[in-house]
Amino acid sequence: MWTSGCQSLTFSIRVYVYSNFSSEKHRWNPVFASTNKSVVDLSLPAKVERLLDGLKWDDKGLVVATAQNVDTGTILMQGFANKEAVLKTASERRATFYSRSRSQLWTKGETSNNFINIHDISLDCDRDSIIYLGKPVGPACHTGTATCFYTSLDDLIDDPQGGKHKLALSTLYSLENIISQRKAELASFQTGKPSWTKRLLLDNKLLCSKIREEADELCRTMEENEGRSRTASEAADVVYHILVSLAVQEVKFEEVLEHLRERFSQSGIEEKKNRAPKVTKD
Amino acid sequence: MWTSGCQSLTFSIRVYVYSNFSSEKHRWNPVFASTNKSVVDLSLPAKVERLLDGLKWDDKGLVVATAQNVDTGTILMQGFANKEAVLKTASERRATFYSRSRSQLWTKGETSNNFINIHDISLDCDRDSIIYLGKPVGPACHTGTATCFYTSLDDLIDDPQGGKHKLALSTLYSLENIISQRKAELASFQTGKPSWTKRLLLDNKLLCSKIREEADELCRTMEENEGRSRTASEAADVVYHILVSLAVQEVKFEEVLEHLRERFSQSGIEEKKNRAPKVTKD
Repeated sequence: MWTSGCQSLTFSIRVYVYSNFSSEKHRWNPVFASTNKSVVDLSLPAKVERLLDGLKWDDKGLVVATAQNVDTGTILMQGFANKEAVLKTASERRATFYSRSRSQLWTKGETSNNFINIHDISLDCDRDSIIYLGKPVGPACHTGTATCFYTSLDDLIDDPQGGKHKLALSTLYSLENIISQRKAELASFQTGKPSWTKRLLLDNKLLCSKIREEADELCRTMEENEGRSRTASEAADVVYHILVSLAVQEVKFEEVLEHLRERFSQSGIEEKKNRAPKVTKD
Repeated sequence: MWTSGCQSLTFSIRVYVYSNFSSEKHRWNPVFASTNKSVVDLSLPAKVERLLDGLKWDDKGLVVATAQNVDTGTILMQGFANKEAVLKTASERRATFYSRSRSQLWTKGETSNNFINIHDISLDCDRDSIIYLGKPVGPACHTGTATCFYTSLDDLIDDPQGGKHKLALSTLYSLENIISQRKAELASFQTGKPSWTKRLLLDNKLLCSKIREEADELCRTMEENEGRSRTASEAADVVYHILVSLAVQEVKFEEVLEHLRERFSQSGIEEKKNRAPKVTKD
């Protein structure tokens, strides 16, 4: 079913060096058997090809490929991939799709440099859909927005001429956006009593006292066995005040997650590093 | 291009009551012009149909439809939708797809009751892909897992017979999973020095002292102008310790987000509630 020129990428002698990077689980660095180093060798172990043969490619040899931000979970874009595109993505660790309109592979960022660096590739239960879990370098959309999904159908129903630029964000990032908007509004003339968020944004002393207070209250839910619901509610308070403090200092929550990912992916990476380099010849 | 029986859903007299719910922005409650209340009237205002006419339906009258957890951002499943499926999703607020194998609509959960309740529908820049941002009731996958994406290609490459059940989670939820695993490991016999996470899980006093200490350190980054990078790092420390405290009390971070969503979606909802019920006749 898969008809594009993947065979041309397969060489008779395959030698791979298996290495790890702090932010990426796998990368195959092709080592050339010939002296012609200008040849791009995208070949992959036969077992990878066999695995991909097990995917349910549609009648055009494609699966749906959705790129998702590994840290925030934001869906960045959706395209299609043929076997060659998945092989290229798996080997070069940059999200690559098959353009149905141009009938060719395209690596997101090949002209804009806004690549999506791949951390993992996930297959669904039916094997006909994949997620490219990756880290975008710059905006994912050709329009310059972080994600291609920035139009709410509900908003369009309210206002068919407007309704744009509401990014499809999950709760934490929607809240982060709301706080950013409140901060932006502070630059213009304000009437009436400011909202709680604005008061916090304007008063570091108040904000810090609230962060310490809410952290203490979260601890008390444990110390005094106040129950699950109270814990969730108090944790929500702490998270909200952390988001405000990040907004004050122009730090995105995504940057916090980058720190966490780097710290907590260490164990797996260290485990891999302790392995002898994998050199296969088949 | 869209060929299924949507026209049959259109009635000459359309009366809608426009109402709001705490967790959902829109819901059209059809009010029947006839006395036959058993007839399911899925008709929507002409403007909604016109909006959907503007989508780029493929040669089979479909767009890709991806269901995403509104709170965590986890991609739950991916299917396809025809116009009728999007209309039904928009009106009934439950993720509905078009089954290509059975050539019929199917609402996720119609047999299992594991519905995905819709909060928003997002269109991409090309208008050929949509996100159903929703809240799953129970597991989204027919296999019983939270998401259909539980197979890592990288893991399969390492172990073609295994490599399953690594959910496609973004950083925060991967970390939450790691902490849960550490907690589960505590039930079995432990040798050697326990990890820091395990020490925290075993000692509420230590955990609470760390939560208070890290919250204080985050505040100091603001009070002492320690810079953006230090702020992100200290916020990461607080978030990690919050996750451990949630694990101790068997609370998922998703529950924390539910609290935040309920609080911060109030303003928009209240604004809508203050409007007179929208009754249209066309």
